[in-house]
Amino acid sequence: MAAENCIPDWLTRQVLAGSKNIALVTGVNEGQSYTWADLQSRAILMSGVLSGQGVGEGDRVAVLLGNGSHFVEIFHALIQLKAILVPLNTRLTGAELVWQLQDVGASYLLYDEQNEAKVAEFRPQLSDLVFLRADNLANLPPAEFTLREWIDLSELHTIIYSSGTTGQPKGVRLTYGNHYWGALASSLNLGNQRSDKWLAVLPLFHVGGLSILFRSLIYGIPAVVHESFDPVAVNRAIETGGVTIVSVVATMLQRMLDQQGAKPYRLHLRCILLGGGPAPLPLLERCQAISVPVVQTYGMTETASQFATLAPEWAIRKIGSAGLPLQPNALRIEREGQSVPVGEVGEIVVRGPTLSPGYDRRSEATARAFREGWFYTGDLGRVDAEGFLYVVDRRDDLIISGGENVYPAELEAVLLSHPAIEEAGVFGLPDEKWGAVPIAVVKLRAGETVETQALLEWCATRLARYKQPSRIIFRDLYLPHNAGGKLLRRVLREEYSIHGDDKVPN
Amino acid sequence: MAAENCIPDWLTRQVLAGSKNIALVTGVNEGQSYTWADLQSRAILMSGVLSGQGVGEGDRVAVLLGNGSHFVEIFHALIQLKAILVPLNTRLTGAELVWQLQDVGASYLLYDEQNEAKVAEFRPQLSDLVFLRADNLANLPPAEFTLREWIDLSELHTIIYSSGTTGQPKGVRLTYGNHYWGALASSLNLGNQRSDKWLAVLPLFHVGGLSILFRSLIYGIPAVVHESFDPVAVNRAIETGGVTIVSVVATMLQRMLDQQGAKPYRLHLRCILLGGGPAPLPLLERCQAISVPVVQTYGMTETASQFATLAPEWAIRKIGSAGLPLQPNALRIEREGQSVPVGEVGEIVVRGPTLSPGYDRRSEATARAFREGWFYTGDLGRVDAEGFLYVVDRRDDLIISGGENVYPAELEAVLLSHPAIEEAGVFGLPDEKWGAVPIAVVKLRAGETVETQALLEWCATRLARYKQPSRIIFRDLYLPHNAGGKLLRRVLREEYSIHGDDKVPN
Repeated sequence: MAAENCIPDWLTRQVLAGSKNIALVTGVNEGQSYTWADLQSRAILMSGVLSGQGVGEGDRVAVLLGNGSHFVEIFHALIQLKAILVPLNTRLTGAELVWQLQDVGASYLLYDEQNEAKVAEFRPQLSDLVFLRADNLANLPPAEFTLREWIDLSELHTIIYSSGTTGQPKGVRLTYGNHYWGALASSLNLGNQRSDKWLAVLPLFHVGGLSILFRSLIYGIPAVVHESFDPVAVNRAIETGGVTIVSVVATMLQRMLDQQGAKPYRLHLRCILLGGGPAPLPLLERCQAISVPVVQTYGMTETASQFATLAPEWAIRKIGSAGLPLQPNALRIEREGQSVPVGEVGEIVVRGPTLSPGYDRRSEATARAFREGWFYTGDLGRVDAEGFLYVVDRRDDLIISGGENVYPAELEAVLLSHPAIEEAGVFGLPDEKWGAVPIAVVKLRAGETVETQALLEWCATRLARYKQPSRIIFRDLYLPHNAGGKLLRRVLREEYSIHGDDKVPN
Repeated sequence: MAAENCIPDWLTRQVLAGSKNIALVTGVNEGQSYTWADLQSRAILMSGVLSGQGVGEGDRVAVLLGNGSHFVEIFHALIQLKAILVPLNTRLTGAELVWQLQDVGASYLLYDEQNEAKVAEFRPQLSDLVFLRADNLANLPPAEFTLREWIDLSELHTIIYSSGTTGQPKGVRLTYGNHYWGALASSLNLGNQRSDKWLAVLPLFHVGGLSILFRSLIYGIPAVVHESFDPVAVNRAIETGGVTIVSVVATMLQRMLDQQGAKPYRLHLRCILLGGGPAPLPLLERCQAISVPVVQTYGMTETASQFATLAPEWAIRKIGSAGLPLQPNALRIEREGQSVPVGEVGEIVVRGPTLSPGYDRRSEATARAFREGWFYTGDLGRVDAEGFLYVVDRRDDLIISGGENVYPAELEAVLLSHPAIEEAGVFGLPDEKWGAVPIAVVKLRAGETVETQALLEWCATRLARYKQPSRIIFRDLYLPHNAGGKLLRRVLREEYSIHGDDKVPN
């Protein structure tokens, strides 16, 4: 008998609702299509094999897989087995992976060919872990196995290590219910159409990519999965592949637009969901000028992806905003334990049914961040009189200079509005007089030159004195971002602080 | 601090999301439009006035109102006041209304001008009840009143007396969560688009009409409310009013098609949701022939409207089916406590988050119908190999003849397929030899004639001997239906059984 919280298994439901409908398209050339019936039979095969290898309910199964059909098949198989998915970031070093595998207590690691060399390197350090090559699984003998009938929404589905832009990564626990509500809440905001196709170019090991698999599964629409980001391929998927929604970060969108040129996107493209941190205003304005349907979103692993998203019809009037909390989420802006007045900046504190029940095996960190049903994001933001959220910055990047708050993102936005600048990052360094001062690192567009003095003047005309950069550093390399597209200001700061006494090289 | 089950108030959310978006259109000529801001200020006014009259949390407030803005304003005001809405069927007699008002323990009755005469008639019998004319409320002094911030999904929202096609009406309790899931589940099946407009021609006092107000409120789309059914007005609302979805019962659809003639419906009409009992196959076929996007739905008050609905893409292949249970609902077909094999008929037993917590103050009836999370509908149906539901009949209309089951709906469908017949109803009468025999009542189309013998032969070539009508009665009047469009076979039986000893007049 199914418990209170149980709902019928999603995959079976989609097979019944349309076994021949397309569930998945893979390859940057979209060469491979899978129907719901295909996915189900592959999930059954994979579940049988994994079951034969001993994988069962509650086991923590780490995956180190690129975007592609193996990831999706294993995603479905682990649901069928009631095993817990631990998606690992393929960009991590061997040492970082070992740390996470040990921290989470993984029993199995499924990996693919492209990650084999890295796995070979750290394998000797993890003698208790069962290593399985995903592309070899089909050759192993399958055990008896029955499809699950029910999904218990309170059951743990995923442990995802949070992006680690600040401090040590923590395993974020996400239930089936968190992911279900993530899909429902997104659909109440963006709508949900039978003709939708959602393109995943974000890594599936991040919540932003993984949530697309859930939306596909819950809405019964195809997920189009590209193994990596190629702006030509993304534009083609929109142009000829019928993609209606695509989730990207700012750098991706920039490159898509550069590649697309003056040609407008097809009308069936109804939404570009832009996540991964506050978006540069010039990019949003560029999109508006050419009618690209972009909406900014604010979310994190702890909220099972999107928490707030600007509804498409507000894109122009509320440019720069991440929108209202998705229904049925709620937020407040807090400073020193008090809600702040409208328009003032404070910590973004959130609640809703997508909210993680907490960090894995970290009761202290959980108790600190999750209080009475609310999650303290550590991010800074403000809401306007109509309740729209403007994300100001990551709290841990905040620079306090002469008693005034300097938000790196604000200074970066000013620098990015300069035509010669392609990327900008700002961090704080200690300063005897002011406590801390903002340092800007910029990368110019190819073929562009500009003097430091000119840039300082550019800022001086646009920002209060205390917000202006104390120094501007030019570099040729792109700035460091994590795989979710977030600018790693901490890394930038470390990079420019190693020359003794936190002095910046001149 | 909001409890676990709380979500932000819907009305406030829609005002934030788009205060100037249209929330409601009323009048068969669609003369009046209300934005979300309009609705909110009217709800505030109405809440203040009702609060001034003593209406508060948990009060049972009955409404005897036609479809229109008063109903909608009061609907919103009662949510704000946390009072319980008891919508009364305006087609009931005074005696029936008195019975329901006493049964539910109503403290207030809000009524409108068109129901005043009826109210005046029974008012003396209910001295403890506060009577308020809805159109006079604006003249009463408002009390202080604050908008609610949160909705607790476990809170009781409505008590609706079930349609009463069988036995004594019972008050069905529906929570905010039941209605919320009703809207979510419908959207996972039919999709949900910003451009949607849902037409309510069904009475708002029935769950089929009321659920349209919830979908409007939760999706943020306009509800178009007609005070009564007029096929010309419905067709015009589709043609020029931008209506994309309309909920109807079979007799309404029939009249819409008759009026529309050969002209195809506009493409933006994406769904005609056909409820109120198994639909006649000829009607569905007629729709298919002219590409009318009709889908059959199965639902009841106890499931907060739609429980299963055929997805539009299955309309042709699964004609006659009510579809799969809406995600995340589930069903099974049971006979004598056991699930029956695929294809066999049994009682439809359902579960899901839209399921009422039970009947009001009727613990015995609740215990009988609601068992371990499942609701025993009393309806008969079967599922095919792919899980699609075919509703066969209301259990209580079942005729057992010579040990064989005769389903009135099956015989009615055969009669309806005869070109001369406009309506057909079948009921059972006791019979010495067979236990019971089916009696058919038919109404011919205007200008048509047909002999009894010809009709008996029509049936004989299409049905097993025991399913053929024992007698066919011609009548000029339309057959009795309840306000939800369900054929009242019980009434028909009573009508033809009063001439002593259950003998049918010849």
